[in-house]
Amino acid sequence: MTPTDQVDYVSGKTRLFGIVGHPIEQVRSPEMITAELVARGHDAVLVPLHVLPDDFDACLPELMRVRNLGGLVFTIPFKARACALADSLGPQAHVVGAINALARSSDGRWRGEIFDGLGCVEALRRHDVALRGRRVMLIGAGGAGAAIAAAVASERPASLTVFDIDGERARLTAERVARANAGVSVQPGAPRVHDVDVLLNASPAGMLDDARLPFPIDAIRRDVVVLDAVVKPEQTPLLALAERCGCVTVRGREMMRGQIARMVDFFYAG
Amino acid sequence: MTPTDQVDYVSGKTRLFGIVGHPIEQVRSPEMITAELVARGHDAVLVPLHVLPDDFDACLPELMRVRNLGGLVFTIPFKARACALADSLGPQAHVVGAINALARSSDGRWRGEIFDGLGCVEALRRHDVALRGRRVMLIGAGGAGAAIAAAVASERPASLTVFDIDGERARLTAERVARANAGVSVQPGAPRVHDVDVLLNASPAGMLDDARLPFPIDAIRRDVVVLDAVVKPEQTPLLALAERCGCVTVRGREMMRGQIARMVDFFYAG
Repeated sequence: MTPTDQVDYVSGKTRLFGIVGHPIEQVRSPEMITAELVARGHDAVLVPLHVLPDDFDACLPELMRVRNLGGLVFTIPFKARACALADSLGPQAHVVGAINALARSSDGRWRGEIFDGLGCVEALRRHDVALRGRRVMLIGAGGAGAAIAAAVASERPASLTVFDIDGERARLTAERVARANAGVSVQPGAPRVHDVDVLLNASPAGMLDDARLPFPIDAIRRDVVVLDAVVKPEQTPLLALAERCGCVTVRGREMMRGQIARMVDFFYAG
Repeated sequence: MTPTDQVDYVSGKTRLFGIVGHPIEQVRSPEMITAELVARGHDAVLVPLHVLPDDFDACLPELMRVRNLGGLVFTIPFKARACALADSLGPQAHVVGAINALARSSDGRWRGEIFDGLGCVEALRRHDVALRGRRVMLIGAGGAGAAIAAAVASERPASLTVFDIDGERARLTAERVARANAGVSVQPGAPRVHDVDVLLNASPAGMLDDARLPFPIDAIRRDVVVLDAVVKPEQTPLLALAERCGCVTVRGREMMRGQIARMVDFFYAG
């Protein structure tokens, strides 16, 4: 047999993972999560699974019968609907009402959890930034924002202020997160940076060709940590300003890496 | 982004193929068919899909809704049941009553065909052996044997004799294949080599630690072409004898390669 006869990254023994979304071509999980799986020595691959919204409810439970399927990642528009597939939900998923990962346990049961926020906490941890006792300002309370709010609150900061251009959405997110984290001050509020320790952007401001800051600011104290969840571009207007001010900055891609690390832990945890 | 961040063999754009079987760990299609797909420049991967027999009927139609799934390969024990999944059957599948490949056409319809026999014909062709007008002896009329009988007969040999230790099975296979190939002499019959041009073994004789020949022979004329469908070991007792006699020999792995080439043609044909 010649070496070109076969590839070395997939075989009959390979454990399968998938990312389910619509559309699917833009997702980065296949190359990035597979790299993490392989780096940890697992014989596993994560492939794209393009499922139409109308097919989701019938298709997913049957897909989950594939015995060597170890887990699934969910992206737009399935994060909320995917909750129904889990036998049990992790603490973040309980608060957010959505999951982006589903793991098959050794007993055959499926555990669901959402890692958008946990990835943010993990990225901060990798910069030696602990959230406990800190004052946190979060801009954006959409899907990723809500998950970040839940994960930040579970680290027990001194306070968490949530802003969204949709005031009602900010209020509801803050309420839900506060209820799940007794003793942590979680409030909706106007965007500000002068009296916070950590500024998190989970709004679309700064994405792609958008040159806006998430809210008008001229300067940031150098002891403020600034994280921007935007992945493209890597350098957002907010991060550029924060760097000019000498702040510690954390990029969207670092959040993604943090999220991937926590997801792979989760896939092989049970 | 560091290069170790991602693998280069799967992305959101990758077209997905799968092999469905029970058990699944022993299959070689993932590494071998993926290699062929990649060698032809396709962004595609074939993964193992372990489906339990009890789950097959409910699971497969739903799996086929995954939009970037380009095709499926079926192995034990699903080749006959998989016929029901196809909107149309190829000529080989019609005769054999089984498929081992299902391809999604651009119009969304699924075409089924069986390639065990076509792989055999392809492997012979790669040795410049044409079957038209030749006298062929086939040993073994099980799943692979029946597919080989159908593919050989469609090449219009002078005669095809089919032997199986289960005489009824040989008779039924010969009958079915004869019916589909008017004008070709297809008969059940005792194993022999003295008056044949091509000797094909599709029986398990010679597999793994089995030191038997498919039937007792001391010598083979050097102008007889001998093919053994057994993949492990590569060198079977029959092939060893044929080589000693100076015959052209074709190995099981060459059949596999021939089959893979024809399957990949099929996956991208419509």
